[in-house]
Amino acid sequence: FFSGGGGGGGKTLLDYFSLVILCHKLQESMLSSASSFRNYRGVLNWCVVMLVLSNARLFLENLLRYGILVDPIQVVSLFLKDPYSWPAACLVIVSNVFIFVALYTERKLAMGSISEKVGLLIYIFNLTVILCFPMVVVLKLPSITPVGGAFTLGVYTILFLKLYSYKDVNRWCRVRTQVKARSLSRSLSCPSSPSASSCMQSHVSYPGNLSLRDMYYFVFAPTLCYELNFPRSESIRMGFLLRRLFEMWMVPIIRSSMKPLQVCSCVPNHLIWLIFFYCFFHSSMNFVAELLRFGDREFYRDWWNSETITYFWQNWNIPVHKWCLRHFYKPLLRRGAGKLLSQSAVFFASAFFHEYLVSVPLRMFRLWAFMGMMAQLPLAWFVAKFLRGNYGNAAVWLSLIIGQPIAVLMYVHDYYVTHCQDDPTITEAL
Amino acid sequence: FFSGGGGGGGKTLLDYFSLVILCHKLQESMLSSASSFRNYRGVLNWCVVMLVLSNARLFLENLLRYGILVDPIQVVSLFLKDPYSWPAACLVIVSNVFIFVALYTERKLAMGSISEKVGLLIYIFNLTVILCFPMVVVLKLPSITPVGGAFTLGVYTILFLKLYSYKDVNRWCRVRTQVKARSLSRSLSCPSSPSASSCMQSHVSYPGNLSLRDMYYFVFAPTLCYELNFPRSESIRMGFLLRRLFEMWMVPIIRSSMKPLQVCSCVPNHLIWLIFFYCFFHSSMNFVAELLRFGDREFYRDWWNSETITYFWQNWNIPVHKWCLRHFYKPLLRRGAGKLLSQSAVFFASAFFHEYLVSVPLRMFRLWAFMGMMAQLPLAWFVAKFLRGNYGNAAVWLSLIIGQPIAVLMYVHDYYVTHCQDDPTITEAL
Repeated sequence: FFSGGGGGGGKTLLDYFSLVILCHKLQESMLSSASSFRNYRGVLNWCVVMLVLSNARLFLENLLRYGILVDPIQVVSLFLKDPYSWPAACLVIVSNVFIFVALYTERKLAMGSISEKVGLLIYIFNLTVILCFPMVVVLKLPSITPVGGAFTLGVYTILFLKLYSYKDVNRWCRVRTQVKARSLSRSLSCPSSPSASSCMQSHVSYPGNLSLRDMYYFVFAPTLCYELNFPRSESIRMGFLLRRLFEMWMVPIIRSSMKPLQVCSCVPNHLIWLIFFYCFFHSSMNFVAELLRFGDREFYRDWWNSETITYFWQNWNIPVHKWCLRHFYKPLLRRGAGKLLSQSAVFFASAFFHEYLVSVPLRMFRLWAFMGMMAQLPLAWFVAKFLRGNYGNAAVWLSLIIGQPIAVLMYVHDYYVTHCQDDPTITEAL
Repeated sequence: FFSGGGGGGGKTLLDYFSLVILCHKLQESMLSSASSFRNYRGVLNWCVVMLVLSNARLFLENLLRYGILVDPIQVVSLFLKDPYSWPAACLVIVSNVFIFVALYTERKLAMGSISEKVGLLIYIFNLTVILCFPMVVVLKLPSITPVGGAFTLGVYTILFLKLYSYKDVNRWCRVRTQVKARSLSRSLSCPSSPSASSCMQSHVSYPGNLSLRDMYYFVFAPTLCYELNFPRSESIRMGFLLRRLFEMWMVPIIRSSMKPLQVCSCVPNHLIWLIFFYCFFHSSMNFVAELLRFGDREFYRDWWNSETITYFWQNWNIPVHKWCLRHFYKPLLRRGAGKLLSQSAVFFASAFFHEYLVSVPLRMFRLWAFMGMMAQLPLAWFVAKFLRGNYGNAAVWLSLIIGQPIAVLMYVHDYYVTHCQDDPTITEAL
């Protein structure tokens, strides 16, 4: 082996040895912060495996005791106190009225039967009623449970944001048509195709979108921002649909297996929040999107890597973030408001809705949620000022793990104090 | 705001509305396996925060009870039964003899005083003694504890691999010099600079490396593969050094706070293994490398993402993997052995060393470690055959979480049965 020198053999042997003699190079360890390596998908799988394993015994016990199916009576009892009156369901059905009002107004505006000002007045009235009507009903009707109330208010809040977006986009379309018509009458150089999306087959342009079908597609689509031509996926993938359905079905079982853990500890609360996040923002929204062939699946971004509090708030809930940016922050900027003022306005609106969604269903105005949001401000400043990289990320996680349960516990404490302490629906709601 | 049409203003307004009206695009959710997003560095930080938080109370209790310092007597008692005889330390000191023998042999070989054959014979004798001598001492000397024995055998095994590499590389250098001299005498075209690394200032070429200083640098360097000119970092970063030192100091405290958790459960065992991995392969090795200005910090690759068992074994311990590839697998291939035969040979050698490092210190020949290694074969086949992507990754994690503690518990069980059951050093060793 080593005696085969001379000529080409010697040359390749020389190359081989030159290659094999050198085997180290200057590089950092992957876990070092100096390394640019960031692929930790496996760690996520580890978390899932550990979560399943550490709850495996409880999980199996629950499965054997209660069976595979989620108890439907238990689920219904979350929403109803008195099974013969369905206030939450009735409220959700009533919400269709507001959808019809918005669509009817838009049609009149498109035809030019009413002026922009009248349209705006109708919208202001409609949107105000959307926010106030369910609030009054939830506060006055004692048969609505906190969970039922929160669900109804959630539905109405989503509808409010959707219809606001619907109004804005349709107005923009009208303004654009006017501007285009004016510049067309001047130069006649602009062709009729509006943008790159014109190559699509079933492309809808402005007044053509004011149909009941288009409206209800938007109402059910997992987004808050209206668009005339949503990107659509090719087909419904059955495998994908079933996987998401399986995940959604798993969640109540995992949650129920965590029930024996004490409520006071932060860790289970945080885990339930994480599971809720996955179930709502990944499983459910992807499930609905797949059913509707809705193409844009960006419901969250990589908030788990956030190194500042701001980054977390901008990336954990993309539908709301997108809505705020498109219909609140950018219009404010265009109207000449300063950056800081616009940011504060968005922040206060967000704090208001947080309080609205928590206080009204619980019928307690304690401002804990509002103050929780306010506490984010000094925290965000502190983290951005003093902590960088992984330390900043750890601080964000810590604020999530400790901060959220504290806010929740504040309400729980007050609810227990003001209401009877052995109401089974409360412990259920946690 | 909306009345500012006409001319350039109309154009920008048109652009603005065209831009703002479109706000969705076709994309997958980040957590979907279809998405190419893989940055989960934040999840790793989450794991660390959760680990610290869930052990915070125990950790604080331990801190208050035992103080910040690690009890030195406790550490020493791991290595010594009788504090007046230090067999493990003596064995480690004796190991210098073998280093001198290797260096002396290489010098003689470089001078040509002894032939290659004699040199090889001396090496075979030297390397055999390195493996057998500590084994005999550990088996015969009752004053060596299992931990002391494992430590000594570990040191000797590392020395064995290092000196084997030293022998190979020096022989390759001699062959290369011979081949080069021969081709130089034929063509005289090859200049004296050997490779790209010649531009370095303190570049060492073959016989110049046979110094005591070079030898001991290699012995202490965190690598098993010898190289004449290791890549060196510019300077010792004190901050980096202190951070690694802090991590190494944290480990015994975290481990001791886990002691109250039951031994039988897989999860704490697995966590201890993970902490050991981080402490040894990241903190300690980087600490030593930083002290020696050793540039190549690739002590592990991204085994946490491994989707097959094979990928895990190839990436969790890079120094050993690199040695096996360079000094065992590739030479076997060059000598004409088939791929499968070479792979099996590497695998059996690895299984032998695993058994050697566990059985001898415990003075029990049960072949559990060997069988554990063998069990990897059908498992690897199964995972590679039936599981892909995240499912494969979860299977690898599961085999780590469940497999390792089972192998450990086998030995623990047998050790308890054969030895006295209330020996404090055993529970300590877990």
